[in-house]
Amino acid sequence: MPNISDKGHLMPASPIRKLVPYADRAKKNGITVYHLNIGQPDIPTPQSMIDAMHNLDLKVIEYSHSAGILSCRQKMCDYYARHDIQITPDDIIIGAGASEAILFAVQTCLNPEDEIIIPEPFYANYNGFSISAGVKVKPIPSTIESGFALPPIEDFEKAITSKTKAIMICNPNNPTGYLYSKEELEVLRQIVKKHDLFLFADEVYREFCYDGTTHHSVMNLEGIENNVVLFDSVSKRFSACGIRIGAMISRNKEVMQAALKFAQARLSPPSLGQIAAEAAMDTPESYFEEVIGEYLLRRNTVVDAMRNMAGVICPTPKGAFYVTPSLPIDDSDRFCQWLLEEFNHDGQTVMLAPATGFYATPGAGKKEVRISYVLKVENLKKAMKCIAEALKVYPGRTDEA
Amino acid sequence: MPNISDKGHLMPASPIRKLVPYADRAKKNGITVYHLNIGQPDIPTPQSMIDAMHNLDLKVIEYSHSAGILSCRQKMCDYYARHDIQITPDDIIIGAGASEAILFAVQTCLNPEDEIIIPEPFYANYNGFSISAGVKVKPIPSTIESGFALPPIEDFEKAITSKTKAIMICNPNNPTGYLYSKEELEVLRQIVKKHDLFLFADEVYREFCYDGTTHHSVMNLEGIENNVVLFDSVSKRFSACGIRIGAMISRNKEVMQAALKFAQARLSPPSLGQIAAEAAMDTPESYFEEVIGEYLLRRNTVVDAMRNMAGVICPTPKGAFYVTPSLPIDDSDRFCQWLLEEFNHDGQTVMLAPATGFYATPGAGKKEVRISYVLKVENLKKAMKCIAEALKVYPGRTDEA
Repeated sequence: MPNISDKGHLMPASPIRKLVPYADRAKKNGITVYHLNIGQPDIPTPQSMIDAMHNLDLKVIEYSHSAGILSCRQKMCDYYARHDIQITPDDIIIGAGASEAILFAVQTCLNPEDEIIIPEPFYANYNGFSISAGVKVKPIPSTIESGFALPPIEDFEKAITSKTKAIMICNPNNPTGYLYSKEELEVLRQIVKKHDLFLFADEVYREFCYDGTTHHSVMNLEGIENNVVLFDSVSKRFSACGIRIGAMISRNKEVMQAALKFAQARLSPPSLGQIAAEAAMDTPESYFEEVIGEYLLRRNTVVDAMRNMAGVICPTPKGAFYVTPSLPIDDSDRFCQWLLEEFNHDGQTVMLAPATGFYATPGAGKKEVRISYVLKVENLKKAMKCIAEALKVYPGRTDEA
Repeated sequence: MPNISDKGHLMPASPIRKLVPYADRAKKNGITVYHLNIGQPDIPTPQSMIDAMHNLDLKVIEYSHSAGILSCRQKMCDYYARHDIQITPDDIIIGAGASEAILFAVQTCLNPEDEIIIPEPFYANYNGFSISAGVKVKPIPSTIESGFALPPIEDFEKAITSKTKAIMICNPNNPTGYLYSKEELEVLRQIVKKHDLFLFADEVYREFCYDGTTHHSVMNLEGIENNVVLFDSVSKRFSACGIRIGAMISRNKEVMQAALKFAQARLSPPSLGQIAAEAAMDTPESYFEEVIGEYLLRRNTVVDAMRNMAGVICPTPKGAFYVTPSLPIDDSDRFCQWLLEEFNHDGQTVMLAPATGFYATPGAGKKEVRISYVLKVENLKKAMKCIAEALKVYPGRTDEA
């Protein structure tokens, strides 16, 4: 039997997936499990997208252009223009989710052994894409004390080597919900310009900003137009994760021409998803107002509850639909498994994401968990009650978060 | 402006894509262009797949399981059982087309610098996937004189080094249409077993076999169950290239477990496409009988016409919907461009794929073109007339094919 590759061994198994068998067993035992572990919202997909499928008028479901259906990319440009981002369809390559878009960009911009700096905690799959491309992630810590703000510029300077090729951010952030300010983006602009690095930005949660805050896109940072690559997705925006439509966006012509060759090698992004995505682009602002209002209630429900638990530190995130509190526990992997394996409160428990999976630094994140507030307020309240009760009896409880 | 990666430079631009602007210009000038250059069939997608979208009954279009919707994988198993291939849903990872499935397998099974032996000519995008993974393609020639049969076992033996990790075939073949016999597969079985290599097989054209021939799958080769990885796709089978649903299939548990981690990193394959694909699995045999009858007429139309042209060598392929004849020309890239740029016959011309793109050996394929017989017989006849007239006046005509 031939050996598998080194990458096959290196690819991390998601700490969340490791918990799935425990969740399944709990459910089999009649326990209600509140899923706060995933970024799969329960918000209905806009009817326009479903209607686009109901009205599908095709004899042959053909390949699309490798960069995506032109009319879909044009609609995307209109969407970005409404967000004060001026681009043309040539600046867009539609991918099978932001996931594929990130893979295209990493392959196009970085050589194996090149380094990419990412503030941690960060979206765990950035690790997977880096391993796929043989690229090294160099994490620099953001801290819960600052609410997971951008690390100071000195930390970036210290991390930069001759191998550094890119900085990557997620804004608003998964898993912390942190929304970068205009000033923080200016810090990034300067360091990117000074060292002539690529700036990769995952802005899939752009709309989800709370408390009167505004999202600022890297696409509007002046003087680094050829450095910036944006990743986007309709998954979270329109609660349509399954259609697998994301995009790689850049004004750097050389990057886009090279990335298109990777896109051509896989022929085309999903046509049905593109047709649905194109229909979604006309979704009225009122949809977002309603959705954001709902998420704000959910965020407040979670943050208020967490802050009322003794020993818990919980920032108030301004964006996305995640929060990463620190808990008075010994080990978040152990705690999350224990919640499913040994604990229930009135026949209910919760599934959380251990934050260890969002750190590249070994041993980091052992006190933190990511909570996705993707459930109705009523269920979130029950889930928070479970966590409160669990922290009282968890055998690995510590004095401090 | 930061430099792009070496891979970004290395990725081949498809020789077909290079012709697109010439085709566009010809059309603008009022010339009818018959597209024999692509594998996009004109056969209607089965109504069951369109109906699955018309009847879509979802509130939220969610992520699916990273390996694909279980019920879809189960239906696939039923399909394979009807083709005498016994597998379970755990042996299947659904990908965004066979393209993604191939990427998963190459990443899972081969290290950068490892070698993969592929009889050439071969499907051009195997090059792209290999460059993505940093893997080296080692071509061994199949020849038009044998109709592009499997190269002799000695040629494999000569090509194998300590770096060789896999052999890849496409059966029936794109671009040659060659269908491997049971004896040829036995040769592969022996060499794979002797050197403990992976055997990758792309069988996306399984149904398309003519003249009473039978397709033999690598999945039924005994004693190399842990070496075999199958790539499949619903694209060509159901004329639904745009849904992007393919699969990586293997009984090797270690390979599938590692590949699943790559699949998890991109979350899920397209949900809408999977729903359509699941509906397609019940397509009655009568659909294929009709489609295969149609393709047989088309193949005969092309082969008969090509053989009547002076100086042309044209095998009779037994499978897929491609044929790669050798023409009395100096350079297939130049010829294909000339057809679009300078030639027309009664206001009509053809777009062909230069075979150079299907060879890894520099300079090979200069006399060959790939013809995809994906048009109606009536149009194929007109296209063949164009080629016959073109060969009479092409300035780079040579004495021999």
